[in-house]
Amino acid sequence: AENSSFSCRCWIVEIWRFCKEDMNRVIFSFKVGLAVLLVSLLILFRAPYHVFGANIIWSILTVAIMFEYTVGATFNRGFNRALGSLLAGILAIVVAQIAFSCGRVAEPIIIGISIFLLGTITSFMKLWPSLTPYEYGFRVILFTYCLIIVSGYRMGNPIRTAMDRLYSIAIGGIVAVLVNVLVFPMWAGEQLHQELVTNFNVVADSLEECVKKYLADDGSNHPEFSNAVMDEFPDEPAYKKCRSTLNSSSKLETLANSAKWEPPHGRFCQFLYPWSEYVKVGAVLRYCAYEVMALHGVLHSEIQAPYNLRITFQREILEATTEAAELVRSLGGDIRDMQRSLKTNLLKKVHLKTERLQRAMDMHSYLLTSSYDQPSPDNLTYKPPSTNVSLKLSDDVAEEFGLKLPDEDDSNPPSQPLRDYPPLQTESYHETVRIQFRRLYSWPSREVDAFEGEGGYGPDFIPKMRAWDSTIQLSLATFTSLLIEFVARLDHLVEAVHDLSKLANFKIQEL
Amino acid sequence: AENSSFSCRCWIVEIWRFCKEDMNRVIFSFKVGLAVLLVSLLILFRAPYHVFGANIIWSILTVAIMFEYTVGATFNRGFNRALGSLLAGILAIVVAQIAFSCGRVAEPIIIGISIFLLGTITSFMKLWPSLTPYEYGFRVILFTYCLIIVSGYRMGNPIRTAMDRLYSIAIGGIVAVLVNVLVFPMWAGEQLHQELVTNFNVVADSLEECVKKYLADDGSNHPEFSNAVMDEFPDEPAYKKCRSTLNSSSKLETLANSAKWEPPHGRFCQFLYPWSEYVKVGAVLRYCAYEVMALHGVLHSEIQAPYNLRITFQREILEATTEAAELVRSLGGDIRDMQRSLKTNLLKKVHLKTERLQRAMDMHSYLLTSSYDQPSPDNLTYKPPSTNVSLKLSDDVAEEFGLKLPDEDDSNPPSQPLRDYPPLQTESYHETVRIQFRRLYSWPSREVDAFEGEGGYGPDFIPKMRAWDSTIQLSLATFTSLLIEFVARLDHLVEAVHDLSKLANFKIQEL
Repeated sequence: AENSSFSCRCWIVEIWRFCKEDMNRVIFSFKVGLAVLLVSLLILFRAPYHVFGANIIWSILTVAIMFEYTVGATFNRGFNRALGSLLAGILAIVVAQIAFSCGRVAEPIIIGISIFLLGTITSFMKLWPSLTPYEYGFRVILFTYCLIIVSGYRMGNPIRTAMDRLYSIAIGGIVAVLVNVLVFPMWAGEQLHQELVTNFNVVADSLEECVKKYLADDGSNHPEFSNAVMDEFPDEPAYKKCRSTLNSSSKLETLANSAKWEPPHGRFCQFLYPWSEYVKVGAVLRYCAYEVMALHGVLHSEIQAPYNLRITFQREILEATTEAAELVRSLGGDIRDMQRSLKTNLLKKVHLKTERLQRAMDMHSYLLTSSYDQPSPDNLTYKPPSTNVSLKLSDDVAEEFGLKLPDEDDSNPPSQPLRDYPPLQTESYHETVRIQFRRLYSWPSREVDAFEGEGGYGPDFIPKMRAWDSTIQLSLATFTSLLIEFVARLDHLVEAVHDLSKLANFKIQEL
Repeated sequence: AENSSFSCRCWIVEIWRFCKEDMNRVIFSFKVGLAVLLVSLLILFRAPYHVFGANIIWSILTVAIMFEYTVGATFNRGFNRALGSLLAGILAIVVAQIAFSCGRVAEPIIIGISIFLLGTITSFMKLWPSLTPYEYGFRVILFTYCLIIVSGYRMGNPIRTAMDRLYSIAIGGIVAVLVNVLVFPMWAGEQLHQELVTNFNVVADSLEECVKKYLADDGSNHPEFSNAVMDEFPDEPAYKKCRSTLNSSSKLETLANSAKWEPPHGRFCQFLYPWSEYVKVGAVLRYCAYEVMALHGVLHSEIQAPYNLRITFQREILEATTEAAELVRSLGGDIRDMQRSLKTNLLKKVHLKTERLQRAMDMHSYLLTSSYDQPSPDNLTYKPPSTNVSLKLSDDVAEEFGLKLPDEDDSNPPSQPLRDYPPLQTESYHETVRIQFRRLYSWPSREVDAFEGEGGYGPDFIPKMRAWDSTIQLSLATFTSLLIEFVARLDHLVEAVHDLSKLANFKIQEL
């Protein structure tokens, strides 16, 4: 008994948290209750019931089906319902008159055929891509038509039936719209506005999170790369939000579609407010978020640059990231406050920091590709230019450079074998690579041995570890390139926000 | 007149094409027509009408609302409708009896309060995340309850009303289900199966398309990088499909939810067929597709490796791509034919080709970072190790290597200025970089001059072109790294398909 009372308490706590998270949910629920109550009163009181008769129950049905969360969606549904009912009513009256004038035998046949045709045509039309948003309207046409024509046939006087029903539906629709608009209205436009601002912050957060983790991560806390592909990444809340933003790409569009139905209100007091621009900005932002996803992919990739190489450009990467995130946040803030300000300075800063990162990479590019720590290159048939440098370049670059010239004019095409490339790594690094290597071939488990046991694929075989070596170092280059590409895409984002702020007449912020 | 007849003909042609694209659409439309016709006949003929009375019109409403495209979705809607109606009916009868026993004055008050409460509670519950799929069921509960209790109050005998209405709804539901299952059934499971197979082919196609375009593209046909970010890329049909696959990520889930409601049928004759595994495989495949998106991002990036550098590893990149695409297609083919075969050989081949690509990059890694074509490095304070090589290494590597040692022990930290870095590029390359550079700062147009005019940012200024140089070359490294990461993710894909084929008891294919 105590156990059940405990789980009951848990349940109440969870519901309470759910309500507190967004009080609008509770308000919405009470609004629906209020709307159905109001429309039921029409029937519970005698006077309106006697005027409209039994058809008044249709107003209840209308409220229950029409009432949506936002004002715009309710208007949209109401429009579908109203136009659908009207068309169906007119059609039903016309067909009923024709059928009636054709005599008693032909009447049910004509009615049956008309129902079949209407069912087929409306179902076909709602599959047509550009008509899909009006799917509900076609359903309404179909069942309203059937109801009116069939009950008209059985009870006589289809016009009276149709009119009574239209009145009831109109009453239901008006009650639903009034309650929705007058009692704590929830505007789709407002939600769209906030959703977009949130998305800006989510992208900025997850960029920073991802980069920080990349630089902080010394590779020790990755027990199982293989299982991490589809994992939840519990320690990366911002990434999770970013991914769910990408997955719910249709949300902005749905909200924008609803917002178009809303009259000017509150801050959005301009007629024909450019809601579709919000969708466009969201699309460009998503385009930037794809780069963050790619960065995250490198962070959790099997092929990893070692920690001491990663932190080589630590300062430059961090600075560029911080500036880029600040620019994204500042753009989001401008939209939030509905103001327009020149982003020249921030954009310049981001470009400057990115250039600095590139310059640093340019200067120390040999780190990214050539092999270091090679004591005896004598037995190589070919050797790329290499340098012996410490990796902590950010702190002190003043190290000796030991360049070695190739021993001979080399004429091997790139796919020629390198038979005797010796394992020359220092121990810890060697170990890292080996572990990463094993992981890459970890599936299916029985295959690892077969694969390793084969020893070589004809003349092309070289020890795998060497082969992966340069890629491991290039992983850092990939990371920074993706970061730079993210910055390059920010230009488009700034442009999209600029277009939005012009069309939406945001206030110009004096600097 | 001729003009309108022409546009009319266009219209008919387009409809015809739409039908031919998927004949199931036409079949579905006729099925809906048939179902409403059947249920209308119940009313048009006298006998059933006399048995059930006016409430029989509810069966029409049920058919029109319940009839969905696939069998599973229809079952799902039917379940919602049936359970909702049943619960609402029981609740309405109970409340009506209580209200009736409380006397004439209290009756409407109790009914009104109960309606308000039910409206509030159902609206709140349907917002709860785990109950969202049953949103329709809550709507049904609300309006059925209101209809029964209100019309019971006005017309007396709520039990009779409730029962009649439930019978009608049951008749409508049975007609809808029978027509949907017996006449050319469209199974959600079958659609899910085909959709997944299509996705495999789409990913393979767009990978090949993207890589081929990257290698074929000599940079001349990119008049406007800036506008291409959100473009349609008309010459890349596979990429468009891939993007729409990513955007419609919820489609597989919706189909799987419907498929769970379907009885065993056709090829899927196993009870509790693992439809949710399809969603998992789809998720892993989407994870691979993100890499293709990133590759596409590099292809259309502002920062581009020059054409002659790109084709350096042409053969290796193409081979790895072809093998990877073949593996993906072969996995899709296995699912299509519902067979299980070991992918060891293909996987090995892909790994082998990828290793070869990595080795090629390892051998010629200096190309990716160091600067070539520098005639006079004397006036540099610092110079990364560089080589003078021709870029056509795939054909002939036999070129002289001119390595230069740094003139002095250099102690600049990477962020220190490089004041007199001269523009040392050859003319054509110089031009390319300059164009790319201008594009990067192309927005807002008036800013370009301001930016260029500033001349320097204090002591940190260096000519931009130099700064971008290494990044331009690293762009190729990024491309290949992403390709390698795609291959690494294929392991997970093979594993996911393996899990699916085990759970779904695919036939084992003997080699």
